[in-house]
Amino acid sequence: MTLAQIYAEQKKNLKIIEKRLEYSLEAPHPILNQASLDLLRAGGKRIRPLLVLLAAQYGDPERKEVMDSAVTLELIHMASLVHDDVVDDSDLRRGKPTVKAKWDNRVAMYTGDYIFARAIELISKFDHPKAHQVISKVIRDLSLGEIDQIRYLFNWKQNLRCYLLRIKRKTAILMALSCQLGGFASGCSDFVSKKLYYFGYFLGMSYQITDDVLDFVGTEKQLGKPAGSDLRNGNITLPAFYALQDRRLHDSVVSVLESNHPTEREWQSVVESIRNSDAIQMAENLSDLYLKKAIAKLHELPELRVTHSLQEIAEYVGTRKY
Amino acid sequence: MTLAQIYAEQKKNLKIIEKRLEYSLEAPHPILNQASLDLLRAGGKRIRPLLVLLAAQYGDPERKEVMDSAVTLELIHMASLVHDDVVDDSDLRRGKPTVKAKWDNRVAMYTGDYIFARAIELISKFDHPKAHQVISKVIRDLSLGEIDQIRYLFNWKQNLRCYLLRIKRKTAILMALSCQLGGFASGCSDFVSKKLYYFGYFLGMSYQITDDVLDFVGTEKQLGKPAGSDLRNGNITLPAFYALQDRRLHDSVVSVLESNHPTEREWQSVVESIRNSDAIQMAENLSDLYLKKAIAKLHELPELRVTHSLQEIAEYVGTRKY
Repeated sequence: MTLAQIYAEQKKNLKIIEKRLEYSLEAPHPILNQASLDLLRAGGKRIRPLLVLLAAQYGDPERKEVMDSAVTLELIHMASLVHDDVVDDSDLRRGKPTVKAKWDNRVAMYTGDYIFARAIELISKFDHPKAHQVISKVIRDLSLGEIDQIRYLFNWKQNLRCYLLRIKRKTAILMALSCQLGGFASGCSDFVSKKLYYFGYFLGMSYQITDDVLDFVGTEKQLGKPAGSDLRNGNITLPAFYALQDRRLHDSVVSVLESNHPTEREWQSVVESIRNSDAIQMAENLSDLYLKKAIAKLHELPELRVTHSLQEIAEYVGTRKY
Repeated sequence: MTLAQIYAEQKKNLKIIEKRLEYSLEAPHPILNQASLDLLRAGGKRIRPLLVLLAAQYGDPERKEVMDSAVTLELIHMASLVHDDVVDDSDLRRGKPTVKAKWDNRVAMYTGDYIFARAIELISKFDHPKAHQVISKVIRDLSLGEIDQIRYLFNWKQNLRCYLLRIKRKTAILMALSCQLGGFASGCSDFVSKKLYYFGYFLGMSYQITDDVLDFVGTEKQLGKPAGSDLRNGNITLPAFYALQDRRLHDSVVSVLESNHPTEREWQSVVESIRNSDAIQMAENLSDLYLKKAIAKLHELPELRVTHSLQEIAEYVGTRKY
């Protein structure tokens, strides 16, 4: 099965999810509606709802809670993106102006708050005590991830553990939760749901590392923003981390991070030197290691048709170009 | 029973709640810890936890869920204050710099997000399906209230319904929830909990109107910020609304709201004219009407010792000077 076939099979469900997202975001307020609509239209791969739908095939995918979980997960993701853009001071996402850029920080704050509130409302109807606990822990972790992102900005002395914890909180935990909730919602045992959780976690780690590599090697057209944006914003991702370990690159990376107003030329030169260094390959290697762990976890699950779909998704994550 | 006696009786419980708030706000992050500690030390009347504790006396106040509810409610309240200060662009609260003033909007955003997350985590352990639903609805209403506050800034054409809905969402609903959760948590019937809800709601409406009146009639020392701050920020509260209905005041209020840069003298003159007008008395009358409704609701509940405490609180709300 190719990725396109997996999406095609889930097309009907994903369409329903899209409608439900739209419905969830309706609010008696014009700016909020417009901001939410912009977010919906900006699209995205809807990877979290897809993971819920697929994971649910280890149980009964027709249960009502499956769709509820899928919508909830995407709402939490959208809310955290809106707040992230404030924290990162990002003006562009997927080539489109962010909520905070189109309006301001205040609008972004309350739009995120509202979307979060809608997600929580949806969860509250979910009759699974453990589900509430895991979701609430993820929400806490997302907020800690957001904070870590600021805390370690421009801090080139941070260690690898620090980066890994950050992307765990920022990305991997939510993907892990998507798979786990797909399990809970479809009535899988805790044993199966836990394995699904770990699959999602390893997949998420790989996914974010790939994202961080693409930020260096992608073109401005693919990224919807200039290459090296993470570094320019002071966010030291894995390629930058490895570059800092490289004696030939260390000084130039530190100097651009410590400079008050580096010129565009200085930025470009550092970004390019990282792009052409071993740092990229080293980051890809770590991403691959997580993918292997994800696939190994799949093999601990009963081999169903969906197991191959999940494997296909894992392989796509390892090779995606944007 | 005087208010002081009510607080004295609950001193032990309130102390435990204070400790638990402190524990809930601990985070592996220095700025976040400092911001949270500042919030805790700024104090406040802890009226929401107190309402939970008192309402719980209609059932079994010793149940574990009672304290959990009290802590949760105060956390939700604190989180919404931090985000409100961003929306209102407020630099002072209770005479102390706000989180967004001491650091910036981003810190205020993530501090609020974190506190919210901790509240949600606490709720998730609460084994009462209806409790989850009512809490999540309140969180949605709080976010809508926050949005309305921006939406109607400087809009002097808004009607009374608009103001009432705003303070309902901003304040009254959370007080209503405090009383209702006190009921749920202590094992009261839905019938009793619903009446407690309405008591809290009417009390909250009166509480906020009193707050809005005090913003005009209080001294800078009592308020911890200059009198008339709401109006200066474009927040048209009940006294301003009534002043706008007064033919002698209408033009000057509109003119200061529509002016791009009114002078300090112009502000002071308008604030003073409202303070000396019938608008204050009219607002106090509406506050009293809500208080009467709150007390009437109490009389529908079984007459216990706590009924008199709640009545005392209602009467305090009507007469408080800061």
